[in-house]
Amino acid sequence: MAITEFDTSLPSIRQVQNLIKQAATVEFKLLTGDFITGRILWQDPNSVCVVDENSRQITISKPAIAYFLAKG
Amino acid sequence: MAITEFDTSLPSIRQVQNLIKQAATVEFKLLTGDFITGRILWQDPNSVCVVDENSRQITISKPAIAYFLAKG
Amino acid sequence: MAITEFDTSLPSIRQVQNLIKQAATVEFKLLTGDFITGRILWQDPNSVCVVDENSRQITISKPAIAYFLAKG
Amino acid sequence: MAITEFDTSLPSIRQVQNLIKQAATVEFKLLTGDFITGRILWQDPNSVCVVDENSRQITISKPAIAYFLAKG
Amino acid sequence: MAITEFDTSLPSIRQVQNLIKQAATVEFKLLTGDFITGRILWQDPNSVCVVDENSRQITISKPAIAYFLAKG
Amino acid sequence: MAITEFDTSLPSIRQVQNLIKQAATVEFKLLTGDFITGRILWQDPNSVCVVDENSRQITISKPAIAYFLAKG
Repeated sequence: MAITEFDTSLPSIRQVQNLIKQAATVEFKLLTGDFITGRILWQDPNSVCVVDENSRQITISKPAIAYFLAKG
Repeated sequence: MAITEFDTSLPSIRQVQNLIKQAATVEFKLLTGDFITGRILWQDPNSVCVVDENSRQITISKPAIAYFLAKG
Repeated sequence: MAITEFDTSLPSIRQVQNLIKQAATVEFKLLTGDFITGRILWQDPNSVCVVDENSRQITISKPAIAYFLAKG
Repeated sequence: MAITEFDTSLPSIRQVQNLIKQAATVEFKLLTGDFITGRILWQDPNSVCVVDENSRQITISKPAIAYFLAKG
Repeated sequence: MAITEFDTSLPSIRQVQNLIKQAATVEFKLLTGDFITGRILWQDPNSVCVVDENSRQITISKPAIAYFLAKG
Repeated sequence: MAITEFDTSLPSIRQVQNLIKQAATVEFKLLTGDFITGRILWQDPNSVCVVDENSRQITISKPAIAYFLAKG
């Protein structure tokens, strides 16, 4: 059982896969109020891993994400 | 297993499907205190994708939604 | 699997069904600190739909509810 | 599947059943920062129903409870 | 299904069992910002019960725990 | 059922296993706003145990983690 439904036919999962392929810059707003912006390296049922403009690899817990959007 | 029960016979799922068909403008209040307003493009067990008045596609995590209502 | 246990024999589900039948006015306190007050139209495993005094239909995510009580 | 494990052999469930039998006054601290104090009427996998000193029946979502303790 | 995985072979469950046996003083930091410190009496899939320095038995919801550590 | 998907083939689980092997210093940002920094001792479906610079063993609830990143 995944904490998020990780069925790759789902729009929410496919959307992130496409953002990874496009190497898009994505802005995440977290429940803490933090904004994390960068390129998504990978996703799985628990997390999304982002590399930001300072080349820091940040692993975000999916349940902590309020929303995200592609930038530019 | 879905993080939300994604049975299309459920009122909560049907309601969003109808709002999509109607291209209604919907206001979402998130647990962060953010308001996101726009037209719903799609929903799945994890998320709702909204295009706002600035044509930004915003993917909202369903667990982060406090409430929503159709505007106008 | 429901995000809330939606077994209609449970007191919590029956209680809301009764409040719907009684067309009672119910006050919901959400995790955001918001109060939403109105008549419950329907409930399902994910949400409760309320019509408030301004006739706005507000769909509340059940996980975002802290507590509720019948008014008056 | 219950949002909380509602196995009556569990200490956490039995403890609340005993507090109900004892008609004890219990203080609940919620994730919102609210305190709700009163006598527990019933519990189920989703909620606890409390009657407070103003005879208001308040239904608390179990996931919104931070902690509780018997008073006096 | 437990809200937390209550497999006693897991380090997180065994760790609490050991703290109970040692009658250790443990500090819990909750999502509300509260600190609760005391000796753990029992744990189950839903909760941890602590007796604090004022001999108050406090039942903490496991999902409300941010972190904990043994004191002294 | 794990509160997080604890399949060791998942990137999020493998990543933490690697950080443990590397004895890396990792910074965790929690939903409470707390930062906890240290070396990860172990992880399981519920928690991550970190030893900080004051040699304190801190057990973090995985659902309370907003994000984490390796330092230095």
